[in-house]
Amino acid sequence: MSHDFRVGIAGLGTVGASAVRMLARQDEQLTARLGRRVRVTAVTARDRTRERGFDLATLTWFDDPVALARSGDIDCFVELIGGEDGPALEAVTAALETGKHVVTANKALLARHGVTLAALAEKKGVSLAFEASVAGGIPVIKTLREALGGNSVSRVYGILNGTCNYILSRMEAEGLSFDECLKDAQRLGYAEADPTFDIGGFDTAHKLSILTSLAFGTEIDAEAIYVEGISSISPIDIRMADELGYRIKLLGVAERTKTGIEQRVHPTMVPKSSAIAQVMGVTNAVTIDADAVREVTLVGPGAGGDATASAVVADICDLAAGGAGPAFGVPVGALRKPERAAMRMHTGGYYVRLTAYDRPGAAASIVTRMAEADISLESIVQHRSEDAAQRDPSGRSGAPVPVVLITYATTEAAIRKAVDKVIGDGHVAEAPQVIRIERE
Amino acid sequence: MSHDFRVGIAGLGTVGASAVRMLARQDEQLTARLGRRVRVTAVTARDRTRERGFDLATLTWFDDPVALARSGDIDCFVELIGGEDGPALEAVTAALETGKHVVTANKALLARHGVTLAALAEKKGVSLAFEASVAGGIPVIKTLREALGGNSVSRVYGILNGTCNYILSRMEAEGLSFDECLKDAQRLGYAEADPTFDIGGFDTAHKLSILTSLAFGTEIDAEAIYVEGISSISPIDIRMADELGYRIKLLGVAERTKTGIEQRVHPTMVPKSSAIAQVMGVTNAVTIDADAVREVTLVGPGAGGDATASAVVADICDLAAGGAGPAFGVPVGALRKPERAAMRMHTGGYYVRLTAYDRPGAAASIVTRMAEADISLESIVQHRSEDAAQRDPSGRSGAPVPVVLITYATTEAAIRKAVDKVIGDGHVAEAPQVIRIERE
Repeated sequence: MSHDFRVGIAGLGTVGASAVRMLARQDEQLTARLGRRVRVTAVTARDRTRERGFDLATLTWFDDPVALARSGDIDCFVELIGGEDGPALEAVTAALETGKHVVTANKALLARHGVTLAALAEKKGVSLAFEASVAGGIPVIKTLREALGGNSVSRVYGILNGTCNYILSRMEAEGLSFDECLKDAQRLGYAEADPTFDIGGFDTAHKLSILTSLAFGTEIDAEAIYVEGISSISPIDIRMADELGYRIKLLGVAERTKTGIEQRVHPTMVPKSSAIAQVMGVTNAVTIDADAVREVTLVGPGAGGDATASAVVADICDLAAGGAGPAFGVPVGALRKPERAAMRMHTGGYYVRLTAYDRPGAAASIVTRMAEADISLESIVQHRSEDAAQRDPSGRSGAPVPVVLITYATTEAAIRKAVDKVIGDGHVAEAPQVIRIERE
Repeated sequence: MSHDFRVGIAGLGTVGASAVRMLARQDEQLTARLGRRVRVTAVTARDRTRERGFDLATLTWFDDPVALARSGDIDCFVELIGGEDGPALEAVTAALETGKHVVTANKALLARHGVTLAALAEKKGVSLAFEASVAGGIPVIKTLREALGGNSVSRVYGILNGTCNYILSRMEAEGLSFDECLKDAQRLGYAEADPTFDIGGFDTAHKLSILTSLAFGTEIDAEAIYVEGISSISPIDIRMADELGYRIKLLGVAERTKTGIEQRVHPTMVPKSSAIAQVMGVTNAVTIDADAVREVTLVGPGAGGDATASAVVADICDLAAGGAGPAFGVPVGALRKPERAAMRMHTGGYYVRLTAYDRPGAAASIVTRMAEADISLESIVQHRSEDAAQRDPSGRSGAPVPVVLITYATTEAAIRKAVDKVIGDGHVAEAPQVIRIERE
């Protein structure tokens, strides 16, 4: 293994350019460690003229990613193009078909075609590596696949989208509305002009689908994920969570349950004392619950050119060292079909915020509906605004007031049924807010 | 690589026995992943008759670890004997000399002989793996060596000893004294009958020496570590830290400074909002500061049979997959001699608690001594006890009262000089408490 490991990079945005510079900067160290040189030999990008902090002249330029992927002059193809189909898929397929290892940061591609691509890689005797696709610079793929290989995982969950965590953190710290924080995130470059993909939870879902496969040895099943975004979270939810000892995070959760594997992405209340609750701003974090280690949490940068490039370079080095195993931990043939747990079977605590008309009997009726659905309440909080109390000391004004219920463990089905009944009773002025609680 | 990977285990305490059971339990999964079976074929332990949850009859028994290490029937020798010399060293040396891979959890052995053993492994073309030697089930070795390979590390620090963190956590949570908490830790099996090794910081130092080598590509230099334990920490320090926004943790810190590599183990005040401050009880945590990822923190179980066995099994699997590189990241010949930074050159903030006689001029004199040593103070806190205030409203009783100073960044040399002067002035009743602050 003494010849150079030749790398072709498709996509020279912040990640690609950073990876090229990093490999040059760490050349001596990496060569010593790997016993061979890792050398970027060829690149392709949309714009050949942009200044990227290194000299393109020493590299072979390709106009077409597929041509680069098929080139006989590389051992490893790095896909940083993006998109779940189109050029990214074509180029990765071409690279694997022509016997090159592939490194990609493309979670959308993996969520959709990961298993097919892994099978192709196996057939061709090459590797497909994707540490950078989930949680940027945090080595969660390596940890699940290699470090916890002796464990049986029961749950993996995390903050996998920095944009959402930034927005929720700012809403809490400054009491701002969702819309104000989103605007700031866009201004600072943390959110796209069209933020749907991030704030709708879809980016988190793509990443979660990859973690689920690695954690449970199952085929990727992104369509099974229950997805709820953060746009309905209001300052009052953030305040109530705080008062009750919780913080709201957008979590991706994959969990082995009695009825199958639950995969869900939704705003979640986590105890303020938990490790995941401490993670603020654009930082990501993943917690893995497993039989031997109990709980391991990894915290770090979920995005950014250098952090993501760090993961890309780690993958390249593993491949150069000949050390990558099957993409999803076991060969594709050994991946199990995931048994999907229906979301209505989800069991856990719930935060339910109702905007109830302030009149006699409303609270009693709400609590009765919960009891009818066999839901036990841990707490009930009703804060009448000072305004309302002054206007109407009798508590019979009929003005809408927030009523918050925290339940003990119950099922999604029971909660939905009870909430529907409460709506039907006509006591609430707005659509209720329901937030799941992840207690430990 | 289709023949079985045969493992011999020396030491069947909680870790060894757990590793045997784990490999059996995960057999199918691991075989699928590695493309070969990992099979424990031979063992040795002090007691052959103890019940360990598996049948010894199917395994070859050795009375002597060295004989097991030399046996031709194993590919990998797992050392779980302990001790920095003696049978552990003999057996590991024998295994490497006869061409077996070695997996060890023995930080004392590595701190003393790690580089020599790594050189022997290289010479024989085998690997020396030791994920379990630092922070139990947390994959910090793999993260430093593989996942952050493209990074230049500037600092690595962590809570590496669960006993100390348990004691400090309980002192804070319950206002108990160090001695009370130590006794409880012993009763619960978290501390040894002779706790010196843990509470004196020596266990943390061994682990730190390994992290330093991996982080900076230098030879292990355990003797260079400045070590201070936690036995001098009193409830008043814990309370004052809390009041000032800090928490006290026993940290191992390795840092690249202008004058060389600083390695130190001491009680440290960390901001309550930091990730490391959230780590309570026997849990361990390591933070790595590096150029590309900025900051990555790993949190998890630092000890325990199953958690440590998880790391042992991960190492075994990496070796079975053929994927381990040089023990300390680069070949021994490429490890640099560490340039030691003198502790007196350490620069940082300090907490200084003086027990000063309550009389006119004492505080002024102390503050003057600090100013003379060019030390700027961030805060000065003097709480007279209610008792003292009642007895003597004039503030001239001469009774000892605590005075706490928090400094801006200064040097260890300056602090020591200033504190010596204060002692010389005769204003303090007891030896001052000095605790370093790690601000970010």
